[in-house]
Amino acid sequence: MPRFFIDIASENIAWPEIVIKGDDARHIARSLRMAVGDEIIVCDKEANEYRARLTKIRDEECTAEILDSFRATSELPVCVTLYMAFPKGDKLETVIQKATELGVGRIVPFESSRCIKRPKEDKIDKQLQRYRRIAEEAAKQSGRALIPEISAPMSFEEMLKDATALKKAIFCYENETEHRLGKIISSLCEGEAVSVIVGSEGGFSPEEAARATEAGCLSVTLGRRILRCETAPLFVLSAIGYQLELLN
Amino acid sequence: MPRFFIDIASENIAWPEIVIKGDDARHIARSLRMAVGDEIIVCDKEANEYRARLTKIRDEECTAEILDSFRATSELPVCVTLYMAFPKGDKLETVIQKATELGVGRIVPFESSRCIKRPKEDKIDKQLQRYRRIAEEAAKQSGRALIPEISAPMSFEEMLKDATALKKAIFCYENETEHRLGKIISSLCEGEAVSVIVGSEGGFSPEEAARATEAGCLSVTLGRRILRCETAPLFVLSAIGYQLELLN
Repeated sequence: MPRFFIDIASENIAWPEIVIKGDDARHIARSLRMAVGDEIIVCDKEANEYRARLTKIRDEECTAEILDSFRATSELPVCVTLYMAFPKGDKLETVIQKATELGVGRIVPFESSRCIKRPKEDKIDKQLQRYRRIAEEAAKQSGRALIPEISAPMSFEEMLKDATALKKAIFCYENETEHRLGKIISSLCEGEAVSVIVGSEGGFSPEEAARATEAGCLSVTLGRRILRCETAPLFVLSAIGYQLELLN
Repeated sequence: MPRFFIDIASENIAWPEIVIKGDDARHIARSLRMAVGDEIIVCDKEANEYRARLTKIRDEECTAEILDSFRATSELPVCVTLYMAFPKGDKLETVIQKATELGVGRIVPFESSRCIKRPKEDKIDKQLQRYRRIAEEAAKQSGRALIPEISAPMSFEEMLKDATALKKAIFCYENETEHRLGKIISSLCEGEAVSVIVGSEGGFSPEEAARATEAGCLSVTLGRRILRCETAPLFVLSAIGYQLELLN
C-alpha cells in the first residue's frame, strides 16, 4: 500500500481526517492515479501509522479518512546513527538508500584525513536536500515508519564528540585484530542508541584510530575480508538487524 | 600487497618459482609499475597463498620467487552459493561485486516468473565473461583466497534442484512470517555448504514459494523492512559472516 510521511506538528491530522499536500498530493493524483476510496498508509514521523481511505484527490491537496492507527513495527529495536566519512563519487547516496532500508536512524557525513572528496561549502545545502530526498524515498519503499535524519557534515573531532555522547560507539577499523563486532552488537538492549563510525576509501589513520579509542569508541574488526567503504556500513547494519530481529 | 590468482593446474608453480602471464603480467609491469624485488601475494585458487618476490618483469610474463606459503584465512567457514533471480539493469554486477567482498563461494543467476530482465541467448557468454571479471577484481580487492564461481543461468526448476542438492537451502520470501533467518544460519557448522535464494524486483509468486518449500528449501523472513532485491543477498551474506566470524 502506498506510504506517505506527514508532519504531525503542522496539524495535518484532524481526526479522523488527514490532509496531504505538495509533492505527495501530486504523486497520489498523477503518478499513482489513485481514486477516491483507495487506501494508503500515513506515518506521522513519530512512529505512528494510520490506515486511511482517500476522500478527496486534487493535485495540490488530497484528504483521507483514518480507518485505524497503530504503533509502527518496522523500526529497528535500537537507534543507530551512522557516521560516514565522505566517500568518492556518489557512493554516499547509495549508502543513504541502503542504510535506510536496513533501518538506520540518522546519518552524519564527516571529514577524515583520508577523504578524497570533500563537500563544497556553497554546494552542501543542495546536497543535503538531495540526501534527504533519497532517505525519504527509501523509507517509503522499505516500509519504514520514520525517515532517517541526515545531519550536516561534521569535522572528525565534532563527529567523535557527537558519536560518543550517551551512546555506545563502534569504530570500524581495518587494523583492529582484538575486538570483534559481535562483542558490542550482542550486548545491545532494546531502546539503546548506538553509533557506527565508518571511514572513506583510505580507511582511518593510526592517529585517528587512537583518538577514537581515547574518546571512548570501541574499535572493531568486521571480519576476514577487506570491505569497500560503502559495503562496511551495510554489513554492520545487517549484523545489528540480524542480531536483534532474527536471532533471538 | 598486490594479489594475483594463478591456475595451479597449468603448472605455473615450479617451486620456488612462479610464472605470471597475460593481463596480470601486464598489470604488474604497466599499471602497478612494480620493480624486481617487490613482493606480491599469489593465490593458487585452492585456498593456498604464496608470498613471492618479483625476479623478472615483462609485459607478457613475470616471474617471482616464493618466499613462503600458507593456508588462506580470508574465506568464510561455510561455502555459500547465492542463487539470484535476474534483477533489472546492472544490479547483478553490483551484487556480484559486493557478494564477493562478503565471501560468497558461487553465484548462480536464474529466471523466475517475475523477472523483467532476461538474458539474451546470444549475449550470455559475453555477460558471463564480464561477471567473472567483476568477481576476480572484487576477490583481489577484498583479499579473498578464492574467486567465486559464476555459473551459467538456470531455470527456476534447475535452480531448485541445484540449490537443494546436499545443501541447506535458504529461500528469502517477503511473505514468510514464521521462520526467521537466524534459525538456519545459527545452525550452520564449519565446512558446511548453504544455498541462499533471492528473488528479483517482484519477489517470488506464491506458486514458486510453494515449489521451493516442497523441494526442501526453508522459506525465511529477513526482518521487519522490505529490502530491495540487490540488498537482500548482501544482508544474508553479512548475517552469515557476522554469525560465523564475529559472534562466537
